[in-house]
Amino acid sequence: MTTAAPVRPRTEQALSARLFRSAAAPDGRGIATGDVPGWLAERAAAHRFTVERVPLDELAGWSFAPGTGNLVHRSGRFFSVEGMAVSAAEGPFAQWRQPVIHQPETGILGILAKEFDGVLHFLMQAKMEPGNPGPLQLSPTVQATFSNYSGAHRGARVKHLDHFLVPGRGRVLADSLQSEHGSWFFRKVNRNMLVETDEDVPPDEDFQWLTLGQIGALLRLDTVVNMDTRSVVACFPMAAPEAGALRPDTELLSWLTAERARRPLTARRVPLAETDGWERGAAAVARPDGRYFRVVGVAVEAGSREVTGWSQPLFEPAGPGVTAFLHRRIGGVPHLLVRAKAEPGFVNTVELAPTVQCTPENWAGVPAAHRPPFLDAVLAADPERIGYAALHSEEGGRFLNAVSRCLFVEADAVTAPDSPPPGFQWATVGQLNALTAHPHYLDVQARTLLACVNSGAVRL
Amino acid sequence: MTTAAPVRPRTEQALSARLFRSAAAPDGRGIATGDVPGWLAERAAAHRFTVERVPLDELAGWSFAPGTGNLVHRSGRFFSVEGMAVSAAEGPFAQWRQPVIHQPETGILGILAKEFDGVLHFLMQAKMEPGNPGPLQLSPTVQATFSNYSGAHRGARVKHLDHFLVPGRGRVLADSLQSEHGSWFFRKVNRNMLVETDEDVPPDEDFQWLTLGQIGALLRLDTVVNMDTRSVVACFPMAAPEAGALRPDTELLSWLTAERARRPLTARRVPLAETDGWERGAAAVARPDGRYFRVVGVAVEAGSREVTGWSQPLFEPAGPGVTAFLHRRIGGVPHLLVRAKAEPGFVNTVELAPTVQCTPENWAGVPAAHRPPFLDAVLAADPERIGYAALHSEEGGRFLNAVSRCLFVEADAVTAPDSPPPGFQWATVGQLNALTAHPHYLDVQARTLLACVNSGAVRL
Repeated sequence: MTTAAPVRPRTEQALSARLFRSAAAPDGRGIATGDVPGWLAERAAAHRFTVERVPLDELAGWSFAPGTGNLVHRSGRFFSVEGMAVSAAEGPFAQWRQPVIHQPETGILGILAKEFDGVLHFLMQAKMEPGNPGPLQLSPTVQATFSNYSGAHRGARVKHLDHFLVPGRGRVLADSLQSEHGSWFFRKVNRNMLVETDEDVPPDEDFQWLTLGQIGALLRLDTVVNMDTRSVVACFPMAAPEAGALRPDTELLSWLTAERARRPLTARRVPLAETDGWERGAAAVARPDGRYFRVVGVAVEAGSREVTGWSQPLFEPAGPGVTAFLHRRIGGVPHLLVRAKAEPGFVNTVELAPTVQCTPENWAGVPAAHRPPFLDAVLAADPERIGYAALHSEEGGRFLNAVSRCLFVEADAVTAPDSPPPGFQWATVGQLNALTAHPHYLDVQARTLLACVNSGAVRL
Repeated sequence: MTTAAPVRPRTEQALSARLFRSAAAPDGRGIATGDVPGWLAERAAAHRFTVERVPLDELAGWSFAPGTGNLVHRSGRFFSVEGMAVSAAEGPFAQWRQPVIHQPETGILGILAKEFDGVLHFLMQAKMEPGNPGPLQLSPTVQATFSNYSGAHRGARVKHLDHFLVPGRGRVLADSLQSEHGSWFFRKVNRNMLVETDEDVPPDEDFQWLTLGQIGALLRLDTVVNMDTRSVVACFPMAAPEAGALRPDTELLSWLTAERARRPLTARRVPLAETDGWERGAAAVARPDGRYFRVVGVAVEAGSREVTGWSQPLFEPAGPGVTAFLHRRIGGVPHLLVRAKAEPGFVNTVELAPTVQCTPENWAGVPAAHRPPFLDAVLAADPERIGYAALHSEEGGRFLNAVSRCLFVEADAVTAPDSPPPGFQWATVGQLNALTAHPHYLDVQARTLLACVNSGAVRL
């Protein structure tokens, strides 16, 4: 039986053009871009919050479980700090154990969009995260764990959440599951959503409507746009017209499939008490040599969050990271040099990462042959070839003072040839953008850099 | 720096047309379609193999490990039978434990293609798998575990494998990681590949070049085309022109993302000895009530495989399965009713399954409200609405007498309305085909049915 139900085009061409128009809009209908940092400071002052370090055994609601030694919340929810045992099939380290954040719930990172005067605007929140240097940054409209929206926080309702939970209320423009740091999380997954509404949205002093171009301008500043915003902006469906690619889509995916099939890392959860090489002190779970990161605790007092105060553990990295894409025009089309990077906490073993993604301190003293390829090329780059450089922080709800220097460095064909070394491949912006519609292709650092392209913070 | 390296189109339109031309070719340059079953029987006779059941503790090379009770091979490779503990957030069964196959290696399922007289042909193998009723079926050119190709079998080299392992030797037309049965495997992943060559391929009496149309004709017969062939054929990149879809791509993916975000099932490996409700006897690990499946053992003698004889465990299901798509034309475009199905062994929790996918015996006595939706509609379908019905077996290397009746049933808008029940959604053939380029969207049963569409075994 045939019915008269209408079918629609599978993809909407106009959407991409609307997003590019917003990226090209330096001003919006609301706050001026230059006033955003002041507004964040003003909101911080209005909320009078404090973050202070506390010993791990004084974290209210948290304790080390008997037996496993895992650091858990008394509700059994939110997240826990456990151990991870890793086996590597290759590379300088064959086996290791480390603390890891286990958060099996899928959170929602949602940006609400609305058109004003023919230009898409995005509703951004001034949000406090205890680990951020700010500590207020520009966050998505909604940043909610399942515990948040199912009420385990026992706090206020998450504002605007219904736009993302009620099917058909708005128009979903993007919605995909994406990973976070596979070195620190065990299989963390978040839902990255962009939803357009035509409803009236009541004004709120902690929210501002910005164009994508304004977000891009703010991404040129240090530590203003938070990680979750960058992750979602990377998933905006912006299919730029391109003349082609060095590697057609099937070839690019086949290369990644082969990298994944090797399974360079396998990992399993183990008790935190069994992470050899790590020691539990009053202030931190850490390695005696101080490498990699420490697990520390903070107590928060704040008025602007769903609850008014809480304590929690955070991971504090040993030093700042470097996150960089080398790029080149090939056949006139900008290409980015991606790396197939294995991290033990990835659901699918390997994801596409920037050319360089590491904490240089962690590689101090490691023989040159095992140092990350292209790291020295990035660190020694001629400033004229650096089209973008800014410091951004990782998720301040889980990480303390975790900042990375994010860079785009134009390379020549000698440094970065058409046939790159094993584990690296060239991809166009359009190819990477298309992959964000699917889970677990681009890691969170690659998404940070892609957000800079999508928003016009960098032009290749 | 800009170089003169050429860029190529990201996708090749002509490829799809070439595959459709092969699907439309009822005859090829080699064996007549009608002679294929006889050829399989002839190869079976030539290889003089036998498969017999043996008690589990007489499986050469296999034993129950002390402590865990896991059934493992002395090499530590191939696969093991372990336990899985499952927690369900919904549905009639909240918690259960069961045996599960753990095979952490990624295998290769590869079909080699070559054009003869302007038509693509595919090199198919007459392959013995001990659990198949045949037991020779039409298999991909290459069906190899990592143990196969890294030599753990200590046997003969896998023929034609280099076409799939040596980058640049042929042209990769499809290459994606896909799951297998999430009820029986713990996170099994295989690489599904289609590679075109223009080299001369030496003739071999266990191989035949067939058109896709010939494979389609053979898919209309019972238990001739093996599961791995069906899985790879489903991944052939055949983008049929369609006027549109009831749910645009973003809407379809958003629905699946929401289903996955709920995490309806979580699973972890446990020792086989701790699978409460299952008992280890001489002949089988099984439940006293005989439900679901049994773990049994077979000893194989054969001359055509990489090694000449071996023993192994197999899973033997309690009864035949039913795998069916309801389909309808909506707006003139054929649509298939897919189900977002959670299985504990899936890497990404939920995959797209056929409308009905179950073993009816397992649901005997379960209250109607908890029986699989649409099962009774499929079982009672008017024969005139059944456009396709054939019996196919699951992977005979792991499953014994595991057959499913595969069906396409045309539905009306009363049985299957435009807005289907929760957990179900309409998708076009083109939408499902596009998703096979990516990992873990379509489960292996959905891929069996999609292979029937790709090859022309069924026309919607």
